Amino acid sequence: MRIVSLAGGIGGARFLRGLLTAVPDAEITVIGNTGDDITLFGLRVCPDLDTIMYTLGGGIDENQGWGRAKETHVVKEELAAYGMEPQWFGLGDRDFATHIVRTQMLNAGYPLSQVTEALCTRWQPGVRLLPMSDDRTETHVVVTDEHGRRAIHFQEWWVRMRASAPAEEIALIGAADAKPAPGVLEAIHGADLVILPPSNPVVSIGTILQIAGIRQALEAKVVVGVSPIIGGAPVRGMADACLAAVGVPATAQGVLELYGASLIDGWLVAEEDRDTRLDGVRVEVRPVLMSDPAATAALAQAALDLAGELAQ
Amino acid sequence: MRIVSLAGGIGGARFLRGLLTAVPDAEITVIGNTGDDITLFGLRVCPDLDTIMYTLGGGIDENQGWGRAKETHVVKEELAAYGMEPQWFGLGDRDFATHIVRTQMLNAGYPLSQVTEALCTRWQPGVRLLPMSDDRTETHVVVTDEHGRRAIHFQEWWVRMRASAPAEEIALIGAADAKPAPGVLEAIHGADLVILPPSNPVVSIGTILQIAGIRQALEAKVVVGVSPIIGGAPVRGMADACLAAVGVPATAQGVLELYGASLIDGWLVAEEDRDTRLDGVRVEVRPVLMSDPAATAALAQAALDLAGELAQ
Repeated sequence: MRIVSLAGGIGGARFLRGLLTAVPDAEITVIGNTGDDITLFGLRVCPDLDTIMYTLGGGIDENQGWGRAKETHVVKEELAAYGMEPQWFGLGDRDFATHIVRTQMLNAGYPLSQVTEALCTRWQPGVRLLPMSDDRTETHVVVTDEHGRRAIHFQEWWVRMRASAPAEEIALIGAADAKPAPGVLEAIHGADLVILPPSNPVVSIGTILQIAGIRQALEAKVVVGVSPIIGGAPVRGMADACLAAVGVPATAQGVLELYGASLIDGWLVAEEDRDTRLDGVRVEVRPVLMSDPAATAALAQAALDLAGELAQ
Repeated sequence: MRIVSLAGGIGGARFLRGLLTAVPDAEITVIGNTGDDITLFGLRVCPDLDTIMYTLGGGIDENQGWGRAKETHVVKEELAAYGMEPQWFGLGDRDFATHIVRTQMLNAGYPLSQVTEALCTRWQPGVRLLPMSDDRTETHVVVTDEHGRRAIHFQEWWVRMRASAPAEEIALIGAADAKPAPGVLEAIHGADLVILPPSNPVVSIGTILQIAGIRQALEAKVVVGVSPIIGGAPVRGMADACLAAVGVPATAQGVLELYGASLIDGWLVAEEDRDTRLDGVRVEVRPVLMSDPAATAALAQAALDLAGELAQ
């Protein structure tokens, strides 16, 4: 079975771990969001790709959901001692090594997809992990704060401000010129089914869908999504703050309509959201909370089962 | 009193600490060797500048003589886990931060002299630390080993091979085009006296002397040097291996002749080397071993005293 999954960071990575538990022998290609990527201290950081790589490779900080287990923060403290900014992004020493390797390879001319493949030779995530694009894109957010109305990097809004100022606009800089990374469209074309985990529908899945040709390729496939909203609140993170920016209600119904029936064939929602409906979409009620690995694997299996039914 | 000192790494840094103890109010400009500099993992490492900065700024690993006190090595271990080479160069986590800051500033277009000044705002070494040149130079060593006859970076010969293969040739790549860093010639011109600490005469002091105009400017000044050789053996390090490469005996006499009477006015040697002599050079016997901070300060004072006498 050939499966394609789009994915953001923590939620996507945990879902993927459940998917691998449910179907360990499947050939899974993950198309990861790179709109959150940021250059810090001259080093290229790809938070979502790394979260997936670390989670599936056994290196993740399980409590935090991102970053490395048994992490130390000596480099970060030293950079702060030099007065270097930003100090609000939590880079650990183990994590720094990943960014040093990545940056060295990028500067040597390797595209991000090859760099990611090289990093994965260490982590052996059990999936083929592809960045959505080798072209650099970055999600920027328009906010009004004490400095006035301005566009800031998504990470500054998300991590430093904890989304405290409303996002007036969210834009993927570079989207117009970005092409899918090698293998992305091929994987979608060759997939038996496509899963959208409960990642952020705006700045994770929504970002990937902006890359030319990806949405179109997905629309030709059986796509089953898992609602990232349960009873009007995000499962985790601050997806509601992103949905507000694009004028979409933070509901399972709102997200489904945002994705649209042209993309989604099956949609898994929680009991609270059983009234969700959209013409052309099969909505199923399942326990969508990824409360532990077993529940997550069951959720992944439910998505696969629904996709299997829809494919018939 | 305006003093200029050339300096390599450990020996030079320790001598400078003694000099600062002897004359805390002097205006000291240090011209540091950058021929040992190396790019590792895409980061620019300046071992001699850092050793001086850390030593005078109170951050040095006192036992080792280089690197940071209370150092950890998480990043290095992680890079090794990714299979990254080289693994023979001992970069610690605290040290990595320095190289990350430096590399980011260099890549932003700042010359090394300004980068060094910026790093020194943290370390407050008590001297003005200038790289010998803002132009990139690198000492390469010709050796014959299991790979045949080849040129390798000085650090590979010094650190990885521990100078185990004889240096057939030592060359400063880029020397022909390198100009003194801003302030270097001005500092020499304005100096009351110049001190050469017992740094390596070939790959530290000898390297600095290769930069166009520096030796000529020094020849117009009262220059007192401290012999890095006592009784036919280097005080520390493997200076003899470097001297052999340029056909110079590893003696106080040999080093003095290498520098030449056109450069040196006063030469401090150990009791064992009291027969050292060269026309036009005043040779004095002093305890030249930097056995502890007090002995080092006394040695620095002896160099200053001799320079003072010669200046009259």
